[in-house]
Amino acid sequence: MKLWQKNYTLHALIEEFTVGEDYLLDQILVPFDCKASIAHAHMLHSIGILTKKECKQLQETLEEIIQLHTKGKFTVKKEDEDCHTAIEKYLVEQLGDLGKKIHTGRSRNDQVLTALRLYYKQELTTIQLQLKKIHESFSKISEKYGSIKWPGFTHMRKAMPSSVAMWAEAFQESFLDTQALLSTTYKLVDQSPLGTGAGFGVPLPVDREMTAKELGFGSIQKNPLYVQNSRGKIEGTLLFGLSQIMYDVNKIASDLILFSMPTFGFITLPDELCTGSSIMPQKKNPDVLELLRANYHVVLSYQFQVQSLMTNLISGYNRDVQLTKKPMMQGLQLVKQSLEVLVLVLNSLQVNKNACEKALTNEVYATEKAYELVQQGMSFRNAYHKIAEDMY
Amino acid sequence: MKLWQKNYTLHALIEEFTVGEDYLLDQILVPFDCKASIAHAHMLHSIGILTKKECKQLQETLEEIIQLHTKGKFTVKKEDEDCHTAIEKYLVEQLGDLGKKIHTGRSRNDQVLTALRLYYKQELTTIQLQLKKIHESFSKISEKYGSIKWPGFTHMRKAMPSSVAMWAEAFQESFLDTQALLSTTYKLVDQSPLGTGAGFGVPLPVDREMTAKELGFGSIQKNPLYVQNSRGKIEGTLLFGLSQIMYDVNKIASDLILFSMPTFGFITLPDELCTGSSIMPQKKNPDVLELLRANYHVVLSYQFQVQSLMTNLISGYNRDVQLTKKPMMQGLQLVKQSLEVLVLVLNSLQVNKNACEKALTNEVYATEKAYELVQQGMSFRNAYHKIAEDMY
Amino acid sequence: MKLWQKNYTLHALIEEFTVGEDYLLDQILVPFDCKASIAHAHMLHSIGILTKKECKQLQETLEEIIQLHTKGKFTVKKEDEDCHTAIEKYLVEQLGDLGKKIHTGRSRNDQVLTALRLYYKQELTTIQLQLKKIHESFSKISEKYGSIKWPGFTHMRKAMPSSVAMWAEAFQESFLDTQALLSTTYKLVDQSPLGTGAGFGVPLPVDREMTAKELGFGSIQKNPLYVQNSRGKIEGTLLFGLSQIMYDVNKIASDLILFSMPTFGFITLPDELCTGSSIMPQKKNPDVLELLRANYHVVLSYQFQVQSLMTNLISGYNRDVQLTKKPMMQGLQLVKQSLEVLVLVLNSLQVNKNACEKALTNEVYATEKAYELVQQGMSFRNAYHKIAEDMY
Amino acid sequence: MKLWQKNYTLHALIEEFTVGEDYLLDQILVPFDCKASIAHAHMLHSIGILTKKECKQLQETLEEIIQLHTKGKFTVKKEDEDCHTAIEKYLVEQLGDLGKKIHTGRSRNDQVLTALRLYYKQELTTIQLQLKKIHESFSKISEKYGSIKWPGFTHMRKAMPSSVAMWAEAFQESFLDTQALLSTTYKLVDQSPLGTGAGFGVPLPVDREMTAKELGFGSIQKNPLYVQNSRGKIEGTLLFGLSQIMYDVNKIASDLILFSMPTFGFITLPDELCTGSSIMPQKKNPDVLELLRANYHVVLSYQFQVQSLMTNLISGYNRDVQLTKKPMMQGLQLVKQSLEVLVLVLNSLQVNKNACEKALTNEVYATEKAYELVQQGMSFRNAYHKIAEDMY
Repeated sequence: MKLWQKNYTLHALIEEFTVGEDYLLDQILVPFDCKASIAHAHMLHSIGILTKKECKQLQETLEEIIQLHTKGKFTVKKEDEDCHTAIEKYLVEQLGDLGKKIHTGRSRNDQVLTALRLYYKQELTTIQLQLKKIHESFSKISEKYGSIKWPGFTHMRKAMPSSVAMWAEAFQESFLDTQALLSTTYKLVDQSPLGTGAGFGVPLPVDREMTAKELGFGSIQKNPLYVQNSRGKIEGTLLFGLSQIMYDVNKIASDLILFSMPTFGFITLPDELCTGSSIMPQKKNPDVLELLRANYHVVLSYQFQVQSLMTNLISGYNRDVQLTKKPMMQGLQLVKQSLEVLVLVLNSLQVNKNACEKALTNEVYATEKAYELVQQGMSFRNAYHKIAEDMY
Repeated sequence: MKLWQKNYTLHALIEEFTVGEDYLLDQILVPFDCKASIAHAHMLHSIGILTKKECKQLQETLEEIIQLHTKGKFTVKKEDEDCHTAIEKYLVEQLGDLGKKIHTGRSRNDQVLTALRLYYKQELTTIQLQLKKIHESFSKISEKYGSIKWPGFTHMRKAMPSSVAMWAEAFQESFLDTQALLSTTYKLVDQSPLGTGAGFGVPLPVDREMTAKELGFGSIQKNPLYVQNSRGKIEGTLLFGLSQIMYDVNKIASDLILFSMPTFGFITLPDELCTGSSIMPQKKNPDVLELLRANYHVVLSYQFQVQSLMTNLISGYNRDVQLTKKPMMQGLQLVKQSLEVLVLVLNSLQVNKNACEKALTNEVYATEKAYELVQQGMSFRNAYHKIAEDMY
Repeated sequence: MKLWQKNYTLHALIEEFTVGEDYLLDQILVPFDCKASIAHAHMLHSIGILTKKECKQLQETLEEIIQLHTKGKFTVKKEDEDCHTAIEKYLVEQLGDLGKKIHTGRSRNDQVLTALRLYYKQELTTIQLQLKKIHESFSKISEKYGSIKWPGFTHMRKAMPSSVAMWAEAFQESFLDTQALLSTTYKLVDQSPLGTGAGFGVPLPVDREMTAKELGFGSIQKNPLYVQNSRGKIEGTLLFGLSQIMYDVNKIASDLILFSMPTFGFITLPDELCTGSSIMPQKKNPDVLELLRANYHVVLSYQFQVQSLMTNLISGYNRDVQLTKKPMMQGLQLVKQSLEVLVLVLNSLQVNKNACEKALTNEVYATEKAYELVQQGMSFRNAYHKIAEDMY
Repeated sequence: MKLWQKNYTLHALIEEFTVGEDYLLDQILVPFDCKASIAHAHMLHSIGILTKKECKQLQETLEEIIQLHTKGKFTVKKEDEDCHTAIEKYLVEQLGDLGKKIHTGRSRNDQVLTALRLYYKQELTTIQLQLKKIHESFSKISEKYGSIKWPGFTHMRKAMPSSVAMWAEAFQESFLDTQALLSTTYKLVDQSPLGTGAGFGVPLPVDREMTAKELGFGSIQKNPLYVQNSRGKIEGTLLFGLSQIMYDVNKIASDLILFSMPTFGFITLPDELCTGSSIMPQKKNPDVLELLRANYHVVLSYQFQVQSLMTNLISGYNRDVQLTKKPMMQGLQLVKQSLEVLVLVLNSLQVNKNACEKALTNEVYATEKAYELVQQGMSFRNAYHKIAEDMY
């Protein structure tokens, strides 16, 4: 039985189609939804809807669900439609009519958003920590190999002398910029939607500040309609932040794939990070790097999906928005896994000093030679042309 | 043990990362891969690599796997990496050294592609049949309601008189155009890659025409390198075809959502196709239509993912391409389900004659009035201005 | 004065915003629109709307416009809004009331589409000829350098022996597949929309077959509403075809950029195709290849723009669709230019036999060695492992 | 003559292809590049490369260029390739060998980025001011019409009572969130790249803090390689910010298009904001709203283009990045124009109280009725079912 069930039966195919994968995806949201419901119960008590005892009973049963979930014993079933129904159903089973009171003063629309944002906040915090680890990995590379010189490239052609340190620090600075973006993203996510109902408030004097505070939100979203309109907008911002992370991962992987080609040999990945071929006995392939590179495109497509889904729709809840749940969850998972793998790659790679230095052939120093002429008083453009002539 | 396993152990995290969801996705490919392996065994026998008895033993064991799979008893495990390894492993377990011969004259690269294309062909055929059903549903709508007049809209404003028949036939013609595109797509998919190895042929006189014929392919892809380069290209074409289907589904859904608003009332969906709200007792929501509409964006993002994944990569196999498997499978599933649901919607909807005709207000006939003046000899532009003046 | 001008003045900012770049883009459509108007006039004569003399006068004045346009003397001005208004205005200026008759039996909606499709057909034909030239360029490469062996790569690692011929032929086969797609695309484009009005027909017995035949269309689009709904759909298909062309161009460029790195040296581009750096005197950069590679992404974004623009809109004309004009025109231009440049690149590049052969190091032959063991009776998997062991 | 010209002539077609539209796009960058060059000259003087007199002469000539540009008399020609060359050429023409010194201590790579970022900063500041104007427009709507009640919609179905004020404030809050994102974006843009050369520094003790300060940058990007890697990344962030603006514009337009349908009649646009049809005399079309809605997709495609262009490329400058210039400039223009138009629309629209209130039919109050039962002690879920039963 669904929260909205009426005196007719939903067609089985429509039920399957509209539920979709929600019941599976929602498994991860169970504890977040329970916590939000506990805060909501406290608030309902504070405004006189629930007695102290009722509030306590609800809290205990919701905590029980969290415990069951931790042990893998609370499963959202297809017929439950989503975790919110599964949880309300359990409350009614355990507590009878009291269970039917938990939905007072809220709609599934604000309830879903509350659980999702608590979940996003947790994931984003994890990712921000992972970015710090990557920073450390690059620091270690700089310590160990930083002073090794190698050629810098422009247009995939040797350009000027560079170094491993310059390379490592480039990504450190880049991730710092991404972290600034993620901090702002976090602030947008960190707004409580609870208590705004289906997008038009609820006819009860709910205390939104109270629930926001208990749940650790930094602020509340004020306008109930904006709460609904922002679903998809905030998700898009979060996915854009993830894309920006993967932008750098893509570049790191592209660099490492090229520079670990035996023809270059600047970098070596240890065997245990390489895979083989089913037909070619000699192969040690950098699949791990190729997949890190490729994952940028996957996250980008999730971002695009969310940015595309919400277009040309009027204000207020439209069911389309529910399809943002899957790309969000998959995007977060993929980025967390990619960063974990990247740390391993960065901590394992070897830089081969000889190969790097051997690649510093003459032409890499052409600019420096031009500047020697500049130091002797020649104008830069004339010095440039003089060196260019000498080289051809 | 993987097909390519060597004298070192792959790091557990790298294994998890590179295997990814392949082992799960591959479950659906098992029978296709077995059929391709049977054809391959026949060919190996024909060129003297396998004896008649060996060939028969391999065939029987492969058919056994198909049987097990049908009964849900052949599962690709994470440690198998993919279905190809799982199948070869089973052959070796059952047949010893003979099992180790099945991979002669092929690489996993052409093997994967063969299984995938057999799978695509089956799915595409199913979808083409579904499109015929939708054509029939529109014909039924025309029969039942076709003569009902309602206003045609441009710019979301009433424009000129139209009819339910014109609406239904518009989509029939559109799907016919899509089917022309799908036929070409089918031809591109219907090329056998088997026998091209890792993209550079195999050092054996394999008979590619023989396996292509046995597997029902219309032709073979000749150039081994192109076989690899076309992975992602053909997938992109197939997903584009799916997007084009969903383009129409999106428009049908958009029309129905608007015209079933009670304010219009042209269309009614039966209750058993509508869902409700957790907070608003009165609501009957067209979630099914909203999700049909939204699924266009999902398929579009899969298409974009595949078109984006394969960029800026050199010729030959790159691991990035493997990530096309998931959006392909999900896209095919989603389109099949959406079309099934669409048939139900089309067969269930009611057109309300009164509401349609009531909407044919005066201004809808302004163009006809102008043409009456044209018939009386006035130039069109003058007639247009005369009617316009009369109306303001 | 616009075609639809009434008794009020459009706000200047709204005029600027809604006209946008149309008047500039439309410059290229003038002759196509004139030709369509001539055919339309013939048809109006055949059904008795125009006298023979009127028809002749209109035809002569329209041909005059084509002549003026060829000489650069017919300019669509901002205040004209688009080429259709500019042409009707000229007819009225030259022919008085007769000019006001040309719009009888059509709407700007079908008129625009007719001009666009005639334009698309011409451009597509040009591009198909360019693809033939590229085929020839690859044939010349095969003739001149085809027998040169070089390593084939998988995972950006040397895999097995390949050859310049295999490389060139891979792209020839790929472009042939694209041409199959373009042929179907051409058929979809080659349908006459003329005579369907604003999407709901016109209250006159127009002879649509007659105009279609005169304009060289292969068929007519039957349903007037589908004519409008197909705008954006057909454009998307055409842009997808262009993307598929650029998919191969992207890969060719990626190959050439890598293999022309001095470290590889397989390929050399002549100096006159390379550009330099403002600071580094030694540089000869393959900008031309980088831009060919990058143009794939530009065309892909045009395709995505068109596929995204038309979503979640109801049937019938919506102004949004007009924004497809610019990405279409820019996409066609970009692909034509890219193919012209690609022909030059392919005809100019040199393959360096020594560098290619030097790169055929030992490990490239590992698979062949395994197959020698297979020929001696060892199972493939055992042969594979034996060779693998020998190499580590 | 280009900055990098050597002893060979670039092929005419390659020149046309590589220059592309840069010389046209660069027209807008002239004053920004001159200002950056003035700051650069000051710095070169401070480190002893230029004498005081030389520095003054360069400054005066650069200021002269800015003056000429203001008067429309400084045009970047195709043969100049870009504004940077045109400016250096002018300096050499006017000042002889002194002009050839201006490029000391910089590369075109950091020079281009400096000019672009100064340009972005100016545009972003303009847009932030526009957003404030939109905020004011919504405030005026709230003042004038805020108390009018109308139905709120979910799933495109009437849901609960809402009001014009709630609608207006929803967008105000949304734009505030976007502005938080834009502030962070501004900080990322506001980093000086000048003095980092081609991505590997310059062999001179340039004072980067000095130029950054003179040009008003908030900070410097430290790592020269990151400067290059960030091109495309920062552009993507800026375009994402623009998309987020257009996300709301798209929704506002979608709301207004629906609610100004005569069938609803909540909203009226004045005639001078509406356009007509070439065939239907009665039509007043909301083209302006449709184009505002559609522009979201255009900006989204620019964003996607930039995010896609820079993938799978190694660190350091790649020519591909230059193609980000056009979508950036077009995106900024389009958003500025859209916001200007939106202000006009918001300030002009009328809300029709009668139509709004008439739409508040019975079912809109179902939730309130359920809550009345809750107030009387019934559990929410039971109250919900009671009301639901009453209504069917």
